[in-house]
Amino acid sequence: MKNYVITIARQYGSGGRLIGKKIADHLNIPFYDKELISLAAEETGYAESFVTKMEQKKSISFFTNLYMTQQELPATDQIYLAQSKTIHDLANKSSCVIVGRCADYVLKDYPNCIRIFIHAPIESRIERLEHEYKETHKNWEDYLHKQDKNRSSYYNYFTQETWGKSLNYHMTLDSSIGIDESVEILLHLVKNYQSKFK
Amino acid sequence: MKNYVITIARQYGSGGRLIGKKIADHLNIPFYDKELISLAAEETGYAESFVTKMEQKKSISFFTNLYMTQQELPATDQIYLAQSKTIHDLANKSSCVIVGRCADYVLKDYPNCIRIFIHAPIESRIERLEHEYKETHKNWEDYLHKQDKNRSSYYNYFTQETWGKSLNYHMTLDSSIGIDESVEILLHLVKNYQSKFK
Repeated sequence: MKNYVITIARQYGSGGRLIGKKIADHLNIPFYDKELISLAAEETGYAESFVTKMEQKKSISFFTNLYMTQQELPATDQIYLAQSKTIHDLANKSSCVIVGRCADYVLKDYPNCIRIFIHAPIESRIERLEHEYKETHKNWEDYLHKQDKNRSSYYNYFTQETWGKSLNYHMTLDSSIGIDESVEILLHLVKNYQSKFK
Repeated sequence: MKNYVITIARQYGSGGRLIGKKIADHLNIPFYDKELISLAAEETGYAESFVTKMEQKKSISFFTNLYMTQQELPATDQIYLAQSKTIHDLANKSSCVIVGRCADYVLKDYPNCIRIFIHAPIESRIERLEHEYKETHKNWEDYLHKQDKNRSSYYNYFTQETWGKSLNYHMTLDSSIGIDESVEILLHLVKNYQSKFK
């Protein structure tokens, strides 16, 4: 069977990263999330901590970018390009699960790619962040809205597409049904696609 | 186990209706689509053919509505309200599958409701409409875009929400994976929810 890639975009606090990890473990294929940042960091020559910081800044870092690079592409763009190259290299190397990093868009012409978006109602996300990540915020609604906006702007800036738009994914799933339940459902999706890959 | 309702919104030509029918048959529960129009027609006193026609007109029928009803709610609104009442009655009577008619929104406060949106890439929709429905159009892209716009406007007019927006559904699915494959995946979703219904 040929290589295939499962891309997972996800709302912050939806458990999408954990779902992706469990799927990768179940299929016995590599999982890339923060690991991808490290790989991209090596590629650009930037320090990993700087890549992480710039990744979270996306398009509003226009002035920072201007200030930092006068002769080259803005730093965020360089990092995006390096990550995109890394994503293509990984997709060509072996089957894998990639979380975030606009991977669904980066691999838009890759034939064996299953595009997934994970979301959850606000109360479910708060519960997960409070219990799993021990996060606490005065105004959860504002905080999560800001997180969504950041991811949405980052995605839109680099792809000119709408983050989380159902038509751009093979499946979008509300993970409040449960992490293991979501994994089970998604493995059925993957199983059905596996028999069709070219 | 308590009653549950599966609502299916779908792009024209995506096979969503057929998927809904197969799910209902598999779960041995009633399936409502055009049948719902008949029920609503009885409720309003309008003829079934008139209901069908008005349903397709949605919000742009403002002047028609004004002309037709000077003392009452516009005809489309009356029909929507009658259908909404019918949907609530059906949901309270027995488990069922309901296709279209903004049922996901109508039942937004109904606890045991699984909301699904089915879509497919344009080439898959054209193939289905050509082979299954023997449809032919000079400009398929324009035609399907118009169908999407009609459904989207109808939904937006009555719900003030965005039709097909992933966050409003438990699952959205690209049906080009195959009708039976989609049914299989959705039955897994339903099975997982069934054990959680109150």
